[in-house]
Amino acid sequence: MSHPESHEPPLPSDGRHRVVVVVVSPTCDDGRCPAKRVVGDRVRVVADLVADGHDVVAGVVRARAPGATAWRELPLTACGNDRFAAELEVDRIGRWEFSVEGWVDAFASWLAGLRRKAEVDEVADVDLAIGAALVRAAATRAGGEAPVLVQLAAQLDDVGQLAAERARALLADSALAELVHRHPDREHATSSETHAIIVDPEHAAFAAWYELFPRSTGPDGQHGTFRTTEAWLPYVREMGFDVLYLPPIHPIGRSHRKGPNNTTQAAEGDPGSPWAIGSREGGHTAVHPALGTLADFDHLVGCARDQGLAIALDIAFQASPDHPWVREHPSWFRHRPDGSIQYAENPPKKYEDVYPFDFECDDWRALWTALRDVFSFWIDHGVTIFRVDNPHTKPIVFWQWCLDSVKARHPEVTFLSEAFTRPKLKFALAKAGFSQGYTYFTWRSTKDELERYMQELTATGVAEFFRPSLWPNTPDILPEELQYGGRPAFVTRLVLAATLASHYGIYGPAFELMAHEARPGSGEYLDNEKYELKRWDIERPDSLRRIITALNKIRREHAALHRNDSLRFHATDNDMLICFSKTSGDDAVLVVVNLDPHHRQSGWVQLDRDALELATDRPFQVHDLLGGGRYLWHGPRNYVELDPHAMPAQIFAIRRRVRTERDFDYYL
Amino acid sequence: MSHPESHEPPLPSDGRHRVVVVVVSPTCDDGRCPAKRVVGDRVRVVADLVADGHDVVAGVVRARAPGATAWRELPLTACGNDRFAAELEVDRIGRWEFSVEGWVDAFASWLAGLRRKAEVDEVADVDLAIGAALVRAAATRAGGEAPVLVQLAAQLDDVGQLAAERARALLADSALAELVHRHPDREHATSSETHAIIVDPEHAAFAAWYELFPRSTGPDGQHGTFRTTEAWLPYVREMGFDVLYLPPIHPIGRSHRKGPNNTTQAAEGDPGSPWAIGSREGGHTAVHPALGTLADFDHLVGCARDQGLAIALDIAFQASPDHPWVREHPSWFRHRPDGSIQYAENPPKKYEDVYPFDFECDDWRALWTALRDVFSFWIDHGVTIFRVDNPHTKPIVFWQWCLDSVKARHPEVTFLSEAFTRPKLKFALAKAGFSQGYTYFTWRSTKDELERYMQELTATGVAEFFRPSLWPNTPDILPEELQYGGRPAFVTRLVLAATLASHYGIYGPAFELMAHEARPGSGEYLDNEKYELKRWDIERPDSLRRIITALNKIRREHAALHRNDSLRFHATDNDMLICFSKTSGDDAVLVVVNLDPHHRQSGWVQLDRDALELATDRPFQVHDLLGGGRYLWHGPRNYVELDPHAMPAQIFAIRRRVRTERDFDYYL
Repeated sequence: MSHPESHEPPLPSDGRHRVVVVVVSPTCDDGRCPAKRVVGDRVRVVADLVADGHDVVAGVVRARAPGATAWRELPLTACGNDRFAAELEVDRIGRWEFSVEGWVDAFASWLAGLRRKAEVDEVADVDLAIGAALVRAAATRAGGEAPVLVQLAAQLDDVGQLAAERARALLADSALAELVHRHPDREHATSSETHAIIVDPEHAAFAAWYELFPRSTGPDGQHGTFRTTEAWLPYVREMGFDVLYLPPIHPIGRSHRKGPNNTTQAAEGDPGSPWAIGSREGGHTAVHPALGTLADFDHLVGCARDQGLAIALDIAFQASPDHPWVREHPSWFRHRPDGSIQYAENPPKKYEDVYPFDFECDDWRALWTALRDVFSFWIDHGVTIFRVDNPHTKPIVFWQWCLDSVKARHPEVTFLSEAFTRPKLKFALAKAGFSQGYTYFTWRSTKDELERYMQELTATGVAEFFRPSLWPNTPDILPEELQYGGRPAFVTRLVLAATLASHYGIYGPAFELMAHEARPGSGEYLDNEKYELKRWDIERPDSLRRIITALNKIRREHAALHRNDSLRFHATDNDMLICFSKTSGDDAVLVVVNLDPHHRQSGWVQLDRDALELATDRPFQVHDLLGGGRYLWHGPRNYVELDPHAMPAQIFAIRRRVRTERDFDYYL
Repeated sequence: MSHPESHEPPLPSDGRHRVVVVVVSPTCDDGRCPAKRVVGDRVRVVADLVADGHDVVAGVVRARAPGATAWRELPLTACGNDRFAAELEVDRIGRWEFSVEGWVDAFASWLAGLRRKAEVDEVADVDLAIGAALVRAAATRAGGEAPVLVQLAAQLDDVGQLAAERARALLADSALAELVHRHPDREHATSSETHAIIVDPEHAAFAAWYELFPRSTGPDGQHGTFRTTEAWLPYVREMGFDVLYLPPIHPIGRSHRKGPNNTTQAAEGDPGSPWAIGSREGGHTAVHPALGTLADFDHLVGCARDQGLAIALDIAFQASPDHPWVREHPSWFRHRPDGSIQYAENPPKKYEDVYPFDFECDDWRALWTALRDVFSFWIDHGVTIFRVDNPHTKPIVFWQWCLDSVKARHPEVTFLSEAFTRPKLKFALAKAGFSQGYTYFTWRSTKDELERYMQELTATGVAEFFRPSLWPNTPDILPEELQYGGRPAFVTRLVLAATLASHYGIYGPAFELMAHEARPGSGEYLDNEKYELKRWDIERPDSLRRIITALNKIRREHAALHRNDSLRFHATDNDMLICFSKTSGDDAVLVVVNLDPHHRQSGWVQLDRDALELATDRPFQVHDLLGGGRYLWHGPRNYVELDPHAMPAQIFAIRRRVRTERDFDYYL
């Protein structure tokens, strides 16, 4: 059985590290990828510090802000069961680093033992002498405070015969403990690995997006431009959106240009898909001449910024056959045995108007660098938010490098991943650095589906690295319920998106004008805006703009809706009624939605009092922020009834705290 | 916002590793500590292999047996959702290593695409030419199989005009795919980190231990010896135990020797506590002269081995004031300011007869090495199983090194941790290398307590590194229910320990003779064997030896009871009735226990059919292995009634499969 050839482990270089440190949170993949937060967040750092025996353990979080060289330290507080925590305020955008350090606190251990002895009058001189030695040792580390410590040590030595009583007096004086505690012996401290936290701007966690095709903003059916888009800014801003997201603005290829409804033959004058990027007029760093000039684009960005709107650009890493890179860098594309370039396909579907890049080509270094520089180019033009098209068809290792590279210079930049793909690939992209990701919300419609999915995203480790962005529609996706559910379905999906997640968006004006006709046999819009110019009558009286405005106002005014970590679902006795809440400090919002767009639904909701921190014995007031009603609820069980044709949802503010004069006015 | 001083990440050395590999299991602390298995286990290695896009991913588990230099490879099978698995049989004791490697399989991806195209008759020559190129590339890696591949490539090139039809014929031939698959292009494969699995002997997972004080085996009240212990071997073996565990066998100190019932004054002739180790006759590598000589001990070990019993030794790293090391190595002990050595204490408790070692002393290297050599010494005397006393009062980093060091030479050695301490410290010791650990089972008595605790230990990640050993009693612990519950309580706790866990033990003969008197105000035995010789009348007619024998036989004959991973609890409508099952292949055992030692309890159990893999529409037979009854159960809901004074438990074998002639006899 004996294996004399085996290597015996050497003795550790220092065997006196008695504490084992395991960082519990925030981490993803056990520290292999950074957790995500936004600026101003208070990050609860939690770690297990385990030492043998009964000695007292102490520790700190060591944290370094982006760009800083110095580490600062925050003391850890014991939470019981060998768990410790500290709160780190991340007050700067960028990549933070932290580690956790723990050590056995000999003085605190001695003090605790002595206090137990003092209780039974068994303190001996020698016990005090041990403490005196520890205090003297602390004095050697104490700099200016050394003399006080030396004096204290002498007092301990002097206690003499009246040991127990005088010791008790000394020990009752917390100043001694605090003073020694300031100069701990950390020679044998154990440190965790260093973990990272990516701190983004607030809008990475909390934002409402509006997607708009600039070319459809022209008057009288003309091709819209950046200038005509400027005229739409007040409309978008007044609805309360934070981000105006534009599909690709680059020159569109002519070869194999798609016609209306994705037909393969484009007629003269058909504008083509903005995702077929590149023509003789330029590629990913050019603008479509019909939209205007780069200077016009810069003007639009500035104009939007002045109105409180950020412009987000769609970056799609693919090329039309006319893209300049096809000529300049043929090695960046995959060539077939017959010499032709491989177009995009997912058999039997073919996308002849689009060439994918070959990320595995021999010249990958130059390709990757050029793609990274696309982001740099638009950042130099004032864009700090990108929506990345189909990132899941490009290597994860590319995104890891590319996003890191951009963020190293521009930590304020965020990237929304448009990856409607397999769950683990979506998550791998988030771990690689995407700031948010599109979700399956678009196809989750039943109560059970919505609850399970949102719990997976907000109440598991996924929440540390993946920020869900909820979209009821996109130019690619017109879900069945919007096709057949009428106005109630639009309102329902809007309320769900805007309240279930702090980050959401709509593709407009198709959404607020309730465009609902699908190309037969598909889940896509009939006469899809991807292939043609549209004229939208945004003044139509049945537009949803008013309810959108109200929703975005509620979102803004209620801190509870600015994050997802407090999301809790509450039981209802009717599967057509979904009920959930979010809280933040004093703010609590409760949402009830009728998922049936056709019929009035009623039932009882059973509130989870703990989730809402409701007192068990007092009635509480709820205020319907959408409908305006105010109700006194007397317990956790309450009756609700929702007519989808009137309003399929209620969003209640819950008054849980003793009221002040100010909020008396507001709530009553 | 821009931070020009930030370091931009360099391009990766190879950007063409498209697969991300994350090992899912078996791992502990994400690979920081090895998982545990026993020899012969089939280890299911599971990993997530995620690549961008829709390409087919392939991979292998690479595994290396202990002492081997070569790695062997096992192909991974796709389980869906980007998860892959393979089964590794660990057929050798020691430290195994494994990693997982994944790559994009270009040929399989091409084949999958082509099959979809062939379905809609859209295969073009160029598609086949792409495949031919891939086959030719495989040929360059194929050695002796190259000619066949070259020929196949030529066939693909030749298909010509009848592409679709002939391609279909070629593709339907799985030999081509298999042949290419044998010679994959792994140039850009991604490998996980290397993980370890500690493979122990079978008894590390499945064993019944019996603790016995050799000094109490003497005839007529004389001090027992190793020779008189030999006479007890048949008794222990006939009850079906695998391991005979002896408290420390070393010379016992005289200074501050404890008297009966832990009194501080020992009378002349009091034998002292075996845990006060060391006297002028020697320390941790000596035997107590009253027990005999080292040669006698060797004889006992051999004698036991011949009867199928392994001897386990108690190793307690502490010294009596008379231990030779106190003189020889004063620096290994903590000295107080008055020059005295610090005895063990946990204020206000004092253990003046025991000096702890100072693991943090300047001479820690010599101390650690000497302690490791204690194990080596006893291994040289044929002991391969150790029970380590109070490991939680010695540094975790020491155990990590010490156990690794012993196992490097003797991988067959196992260590049971006697750590009744904080949960995370218990687990840290298991991660540091202990083979099993004592548990809180000793104090878990209600249904809810037992279910929760056993689920934590067997159905979470804890099971990968912590093997629970269940003890109803120890010389230190006489739980309240054994004090007051009479014979039914002893039987109940015995059945629970022996069936809830594959590893259990009892302190005998105190257990089978139902010693139940506690020292007033304590949870310890009155007239504790730790401080005095006992005479046990093992022939007493009320002894539990027969039921112990029956239980150990059931354990041995039922593979279901050899592991813990299949443990499932089943609902009962009476909180005094606990019901659980274990399965292994065709074997299924169901246990029902009345937790009330005083009253008959009855109720309905609701079996979890999935856990038992029961057909939903057929009655099944159960055979009470303890009581002998045979019953036909017609569904998942069944009535049970247990009189604790007759037999507080039923252990059913469940016949779930179509019977063969052989088991027909057994069950009917």
